[in-house]
Amino acid sequence: MTRDEALALDAADPLARFRAAFDLPDGVIYLDGNSLGPPPVALHGRMEAVTREEWGQGLVRSWNSARWIEAPLRVGGKIARLIGAKPSEVTVADSTTVSLFKLAAGALGLRPGRTTILSEAGNFPTDLYALQGLAALLGPDRARLKAVEPEALPDAIDEDTAAVVLTQVHYKTSRRWDLAAVTAQAHAKGALMIWDLCHTAGALAADLNGADADLAVGCGYKYLNGGPGAPAFLFVAERHQGQIASPLTGWMGHAEPFAFEDGYRPADDIRAMITGTPPILGLAALEAGLDLQLQADPRAVEAKGLALCDLFIGEVEGRAADPELKLVGPRDRDQRGLHVSFAHPAGYALVQAMIARGIIGDFRAPDIARFGFSPLFLSHAQAWDAAHALADILAGREWDQPRFHARAAVT
Amino acid sequence: MTRDEALALDAADPLARFRAAFDLPDGVIYLDGNSLGPPPVALHGRMEAVTREEWGQGLVRSWNSARWIEAPLRVGGKIARLIGAKPSEVTVADSTTVSLFKLAAGALGLRPGRTTILSEAGNFPTDLYALQGLAALLGPDRARLKAVEPEALPDAIDEDTAAVVLTQVHYKTSRRWDLAAVTAQAHAKGALMIWDLCHTAGALAADLNGADADLAVGCGYKYLNGGPGAPAFLFVAERHQGQIASPLTGWMGHAEPFAFEDGYRPADDIRAMITGTPPILGLAALEAGLDLQLQADPRAVEAKGLALCDLFIGEVEGRAADPELKLVGPRDRDQRGLHVSFAHPAGYALVQAMIARGIIGDFRAPDIARFGFSPLFLSHAQAWDAAHALADILAGREWDQPRFHARAAVT
Repeated sequence: MTRDEALALDAADPLARFRAAFDLPDGVIYLDGNSLGPPPVALHGRMEAVTREEWGQGLVRSWNSARWIEAPLRVGGKIARLIGAKPSEVTVADSTTVSLFKLAAGALGLRPGRTTILSEAGNFPTDLYALQGLAALLGPDRARLKAVEPEALPDAIDEDTAAVVLTQVHYKTSRRWDLAAVTAQAHAKGALMIWDLCHTAGALAADLNGADADLAVGCGYKYLNGGPGAPAFLFVAERHQGQIASPLTGWMGHAEPFAFEDGYRPADDIRAMITGTPPILGLAALEAGLDLQLQADPRAVEAKGLALCDLFIGEVEGRAADPELKLVGPRDRDQRGLHVSFAHPAGYALVQAMIARGIIGDFRAPDIARFGFSPLFLSHAQAWDAAHALADILAGREWDQPRFHARAAVT
Repeated sequence: MTRDEALALDAADPLARFRAAFDLPDGVIYLDGNSLGPPPVALHGRMEAVTREEWGQGLVRSWNSARWIEAPLRVGGKIARLIGAKPSEVTVADSTTVSLFKLAAGALGLRPGRTTILSEAGNFPTDLYALQGLAALLGPDRARLKAVEPEALPDAIDEDTAAVVLTQVHYKTSRRWDLAAVTAQAHAKGALMIWDLCHTAGALAADLNGADADLAVGCGYKYLNGGPGAPAFLFVAERHQGQIASPLTGWMGHAEPFAFEDGYRPADDIRAMITGTPPILGLAALEAGLDLQLQADPRAVEAKGLALCDLFIGEVEGRAADPELKLVGPRDRDQRGLHVSFAHPAGYALVQAMIARGIIGDFRAPDIARFGFSPLFLSHAQAWDAAHALADILAGREWDQPRFHARAAVT
C-alpha cells in the first residue's frame, strides 16, 4: 500500500470525524489506547460541571439533584449497548479485579458442589490473581483455580467446573475467543461462562446475550476512554439476577440503602452487585467517553480497527527485513482484537525508539512490542506511518542506543 | 451566647483563614461536610492539570511521568499524618466497604481457629453488610458476625473473637469510642482491633499507633473533602505487614506488577492490600483535599469542631422550647465526634425546612436531624445562626408544610 492509498481510505472513512472529538497532543500517533484511552474534548467541560456545579454548588444535594445515585446503572446501561446486553444487566462498580472476584464467587454459589474455576494460563495476571485469592480464601474443598494452556480448552471443562473465566481478547497476543462457541462449550458441561471484556468493549462488537453469556466484566479506561483507573463494569444476565449472591455486600447493593437496616437484604436486580459509594468523578469521565463512543456504530468501529491492524501488519511485514521480528498471535482478522504484538529480542528498546519518534505503543514482558489501533481517533495514514517508522527503526538498528534501554517503573 | 460573642470567637480563630480555601456557594451554611465535604478551591486547578496535562498530553506515559503509579501510597502517606500512623502503614484503595472486607478476612487469617467478628448493632450498615457478606461466603464454621449493643461491649469480646470492628464515631449518635481503651480490651482477649475512621479522619486527632491499633479503614469524602465517592483508605500496622493476607489479590498488590507472572506473590508491605488499577481522578481530588487539611494542626481542628458542636447544642437547647426535640448521643465533648444529632418526630421535615433557609444538614432514619461541624470551613457565627434558625423553625412549626415532607431518593 502507498501512503496515498492510506490517505484515500481516510477520506472515505465514516469514523474520521471522531478524531477531532479527542484531546490528543499534536505530533503523536497514539497506539496505546488499549492501555489508556485519551480524553474526549467534551470531558473537560463535563468535569468542570461535575466539580464546580454539581459538587461545589450542589454539594450533598447532588446525590439527588444531579442524579449521582443513579450513575452506576445509567453508565452501565450505556455500556450495555456496546456489548449486546440489556441496560438492566450492566452496572459500573469497583475495579475489574474486584468485579471479577464478585462474579467468580457468585458463580460458585450458583453451581453448588462444583469447585473448579477454569481459566487460561497466561491470562491477564490480575484475573488469575483474583481467582487465586478467592480459591485461597475458600480453601481447596470449595474452590480451586485451574489454568490451562489455551489449546487445552475447551476439553478441560468438566463436571466439576463451576465457571470458565476467559479474557476474550488476549492482552499480549490479541488472540480472540469466540464468545458464542466457548460459552456453549461451558454450558454443555453445566458450567457458567464469565467473560473478561477488557480488550473488547469499545473495540469489537460483542453480543453477550447473542452468545448466551452468563457473567462478564470489563475495563473503563481502555477503548472506552474513561480515564486512568476508571471504574469497571460488570454484566449479570437477567436469568441470574436475584439468584447470584455477591460476596462483597455493601450498602449500595441493599434493597433499601437508606433504610439503614442492620441486616443485609440484596436488591433483586443488578444493583445487588454494587458494593460501596459510587466513584462519581470516575463515573463522570467514563460517561463522557461513552457518550462519544455511542455515536459510532459498533460494527463500523470493529471493521475499521481490524482494517488498521491488517494495514499495520501488512506494511511492517512487507517492509521490515529483520528476521528477529515475529508477529505474535493470529494473523487472521476473525481471530484477533485491535492490538498488534510483535516479539523482538530488543522489544523494550524498540518501543522506546518508536516513542522517541512520537509513536506511542507499549512493551509487555519479556519481548513484546504492542500497538493498539483504537478506531475512533486513529487514521489509516497513521497506521501506515507507524508501520514504516517501525520498519525504518529496525532497518537502521535505531533502537540500539543506551537511552532506549533504561527501564521505567511502568512499561 | 450572643451573636457578637460568636463573632469574637471567629475573630480569634486560627483556622478562620481556611474558609476562603473552599469553594462553597454563597448564602449556605453547610452542615453536611460529614456526609460530603466541599471542594477546595485548589481542586479545580488540580483536576484541570490531571485531565488536560497528565491525561490529555501525557497519556499512558503519566503512569510514570506524573507518578500516577505511586498515588495510592503517596496519598495514603498524607492521610497517615492525620491518624497517627506511619506513611508506610496507609494506602488508598477501593471503597470503605471493600477495604473492610479485605481487612476482616485478613484478620481471620491472622487468628486461626477463631471465628467471631464482633461489632456493634446499629453500626453504619455497610460495615455490618461487609462482615455479613464475608461470613456468608466463609460459612459458620469459619466466620460469623456478632453484633451486640454498645453497652455489651467490651464484655462480649472472648477467646473466639478474631477481630472487633467498630466505627470510632457513630454516624447517628456521634458517640465516640476510646481508641486506646477498646483496642487494649480487644488485645486482652487476643483479638485484633479494626477501626472504621470514617467520621474521625480530618475531624478528630486520632492516634492509631498510640492506641496500638491493628487495622483501620476510613472514608475520603467526608472530613477529608476528597469528592463524591472518593476512594477509601486502609491502615495496616507495621507488625502485621507481610503477615496479613488480602483475599482480594490483584495485580497492583503483586510484588512485581509488571512482571506479568501467572502466580500471585504479594508485595511485602502495605501495597499487598491494593487490588486493581488506582482510580487516578478520585485520588487527585482526595489529594487536593488532603493538601489543604495538612496545613492545619489536627488538634486545633478537633478543638474547634468540638467547640462548634458545644455552641450549637447549647444554643439549640437554651432556646428551643419544643419538648419533642432530644439530643441524641453524649453531651460530653470527650465522648463525641463532630456532628450533632437531634431526634424529633418531624426530623425529616425539620431538615428540609433548614435547607430551605440555606442551612444544609441531613436526615437519618427514622427521626434524626444531623448537623456536622467541619472545622475548616465553618465559623462560630454560622453555628450560632444555625442553632437559632433551628429554634425558630421549631417555635413557629415552620417545618409543618407539605413541601417539607416529600421524600427524595437519598436523604
